[in-house]
Amino acid sequence: MNREKVFKYIEDNFEEHLGRLQELVRQPSISAENLGIRECATLVRDYLNCLGCKDARLVETSGNPVVYGYYDAGADKTVIIYMMYDTQPVDEPGWIVPPLEGRIVEMPPFGKCLVARGAINTKGELAAFLNACESIKAVGEEIPINLIFVAEGEEELGSRHLPEFINEYLSILKRADAVFFPTADQDEKGKVQMALGVKGIVYFELELDGKGWGYGPTEFDIHGSNKAWVDSPALRMIQALSTFTSKDGNKVLVEGFYDNVAPPSPEDIELIEKLEKTFDEETVKKEMKVERFINDVHGREALLKYLYSPTLNIDGIWSGYTGPGTKTVLPHKITVKIDVRLVPNMTVEEVIPKIRKHLDKHGFNEIKIVQLEEGYGWAKTSVREPAAQAVIKTYCEFGYEPEIWPHMAGSAPFCMFNREPLNLPFVEGGIGHGGRAHAPNEYIVVGEGGPTGGLITLEESYVAIMDNLSKMLLKAKKT
Amino acid sequence: MNREKVFKYIEDNFEEHLGRLQELVRQPSISAENLGIRECATLVRDYLNCLGCKDARLVETSGNPVVYGYYDAGADKTVIIYMMYDTQPVDEPGWIVPPLEGRIVEMPPFGKCLVARGAINTKGELAAFLNACESIKAVGEEIPINLIFVAEGEEELGSRHLPEFINEYLSILKRADAVFFPTADQDEKGKVQMALGVKGIVYFELELDGKGWGYGPTEFDIHGSNKAWVDSPALRMIQALSTFTSKDGNKVLVEGFYDNVAPPSPEDIELIEKLEKTFDEETVKKEMKVERFINDVHGREALLKYLYSPTLNIDGIWSGYTGPGTKTVLPHKITVKIDVRLVPNMTVEEVIPKIRKHLDKHGFNEIKIVQLEEGYGWAKTSVREPAAQAVIKTYCEFGYEPEIWPHMAGSAPFCMFNREPLNLPFVEGGIGHGGRAHAPNEYIVVGEGGPTGGLITLEESYVAIMDNLSKMLLKAKKT
Repeated sequence: MNREKVFKYIEDNFEEHLGRLQELVRQPSISAENLGIRECATLVRDYLNCLGCKDARLVETSGNPVVYGYYDAGADKTVIIYMMYDTQPVDEPGWIVPPLEGRIVEMPPFGKCLVARGAINTKGELAAFLNACESIKAVGEEIPINLIFVAEGEEELGSRHLPEFINEYLSILKRADAVFFPTADQDEKGKVQMALGVKGIVYFELELDGKGWGYGPTEFDIHGSNKAWVDSPALRMIQALSTFTSKDGNKVLVEGFYDNVAPPSPEDIELIEKLEKTFDEETVKKEMKVERFINDVHGREALLKYLYSPTLNIDGIWSGYTGPGTKTVLPHKITVKIDVRLVPNMTVEEVIPKIRKHLDKHGFNEIKIVQLEEGYGWAKTSVREPAAQAVIKTYCEFGYEPEIWPHMAGSAPFCMFNREPLNLPFVEGGIGHGGRAHAPNEYIVVGEGGPTGGLITLEESYVAIMDNLSKMLLKAKKT
Repeated sequence: MNREKVFKYIEDNFEEHLGRLQELVRQPSISAENLGIRECATLVRDYLNCLGCKDARLVETSGNPVVYGYYDAGADKTVIIYMMYDTQPVDEPGWIVPPLEGRIVEMPPFGKCLVARGAINTKGELAAFLNACESIKAVGEEIPINLIFVAEGEEELGSRHLPEFINEYLSILKRADAVFFPTADQDEKGKVQMALGVKGIVYFELELDGKGWGYGPTEFDIHGSNKAWVDSPALRMIQALSTFTSKDGNKVLVEGFYDNVAPPSPEDIELIEKLEKTFDEETVKKEMKVERFINDVHGREALLKYLYSPTLNIDGIWSGYTGPGTKTVLPHKITVKIDVRLVPNMTVEEVIPKIRKHLDKHGFNEIKIVQLEEGYGWAKTSVREPAAQAVIKTYCEFGYEPEIWPHMAGSAPFCMFNREPLNLPFVEGGIGHGGRAHAPNEYIVVGEGGPTGGLITLEESYVAIMDNLSKMLLKAKKT
């Protein structure tokens, strides 16, 4: 492939390419609120048609449709391009621009950024990857691998119905040699990071109201003075929640919670030893506006905590009157959203039974567990896989030594591709930067010249990754 | 006074009188949200002008204005008419009509009801009392007592600035012989209830964020996966809250919380023994949609619990993502609204220091206490006071034996009139019914013929109460 020609095309068409990112973030697709999902799926399908996929389509599931498309490059090797078209909600206060308008904001030190919901998680990358593919074709070259596009619309809900799609399209998906997820993996200073896996997650709500309990108000919040003779579901839930953790909130006291936690593998230890040398703690903290880690840990200890601790987290809690000023009510109901993150070798299936058993053991049989999504397990790809080596090679070609993480602390539906029945190596990658996923002022850098790559670099890195994937997968086949 | 003539006038002018109730509830006056306050105060002032008060006016305070008016009947005795013109917010789900439209709804078994925010708490009674006063004058009679109207606009915020008014108008207020608060005191079955006092209240927020703590996210909610190495203010607050009560949420474990709790006085015991015989537990529970009291107590035990227990109640709690579906965040902040109710002889001043000491003792120095209002103490008027006897006499004249409560479990700013520097007896009363104060579908019965009085009965009872107040106060003076 004549990369130079492709890169020139990308540079010459920056404005038009940026326009596609803006178009995509302007189309809401908030899966938690069922807002704009089908419209966004249709837009992505149209993009795949444009690229030349023969059979781009919305594949229906019991939930949101998966956008599927097959691009036949006539190549020897085939890669599944995993993408997501849904986003988080936009209800957080603190946005400096409307979150769905696709505004370009000058953000020092990065330069021009697209600030919008989905900018980095992950509409920016989705659009940039398609731009990259089109650029190859626009200069008369051919994409060096066949692409099976799988863009799902329920990633933020736990990808509950993606297995339906995988089962239906199994025979097609099995033709693939690897899975690639286009991301933008530079940190604030430009360092390239690469994660070879994810933790698992189980997300549920705990709920208590007077109706289910038999005590307390059953249908509405009543006057607060009645606390003297009427029980409080909120105070009761507090007692239950307090049994889940140590006083600092960090050690989970659910029986057997840590039973299946495996120590890091020898390959992991090797990676951590390298990682420790480049791990930029201060930048990580600065991005999150966090002053100190738990117990003031640093360096290797912090990394081990981050990657190998399972967690129990309160994502949200609410009850009663939450407006300004005073309103004296005895609330009839309290709800708590909780996520549990799983590390090797914990299983999705073990979580809810252990939580239930814990509540019952402590006498809180009346508290209901509502599982909001099935959850998904942890997943890992070996750094020795050709697909991983292809991405690493690309980074080196662009002058970056990547910081390799054995896995992320976040969760993603990757495991579905990594495990039975597909068992495919899964890699992500891309040279670019963004931040504040799940937070106000989510952004992706689009201008060049700052400490990180912009949209042009990102698209060029995708071109090179495809090129290297083709080469490394072919080479692996031969050996 | 020719009561018959006045009553006939009230009956003949029902529609017009109801119109004033509707007009008043249609004017929002939500003090917690600072909505419509001044407009409502002006409307009430206009009503007082209409009645013939010489100097009705808005008296400015550091908060919302007090509406003051003096009606000079040329009488020997003077009574302060305490009223409030503010209401609770209207944000609760479950309203069957828009809460600010003043709709009349047929509600079996009561008949016609006005369903609106403020209907019973207490715009309905305010308007009805003014209707009653006007009716006396309309038939050529004179109101038998001089009236000092004091309508405050911050009752729902804890009457924080009422003391400013009292101090400014002290010399006028001191001319009064008693304070009367027009209410509607029938229960669902028509039984008349009368309360001779209130509990005290202190309302505050507990707050914890990463900024104040030094641990956890400081400025915004971050991705939930970071729980592995970043502390959670929410989980930490849960631990703190759990130390406040026993496992059932009902015994307060704050050191010294119960130290100043006095046993019921001999007069209280006497009243409780009577009360026990007519106390209709099932109706009380039905109104609140509560199946069982704490520990399944009944009768006298329930009454003692209700009236003589101080309480610590969670009015509201919130943190993180509280919308539909899943969003994995580690919240940077958690807030809890709490009210503490005081019984004799607890003081307002002792509460916050004890809460602070408790938090510190348990190692939660980082949790901030934000006092939302100064709070007010408990208050009691003896059943032997002529003002109390005047209301009781009225009930008997209308054919009701009142159920007398030594005090309510609720709180109100009465204590300001009951205590230094005024030390006035305080009574409330009125024959009518309403419900769901601080809850959706707040209502007041306006039609007659159901188990309770409607608007006509309510207004007639106010006329009789004024008549009896005049007589009993004069009689007391003579003896």
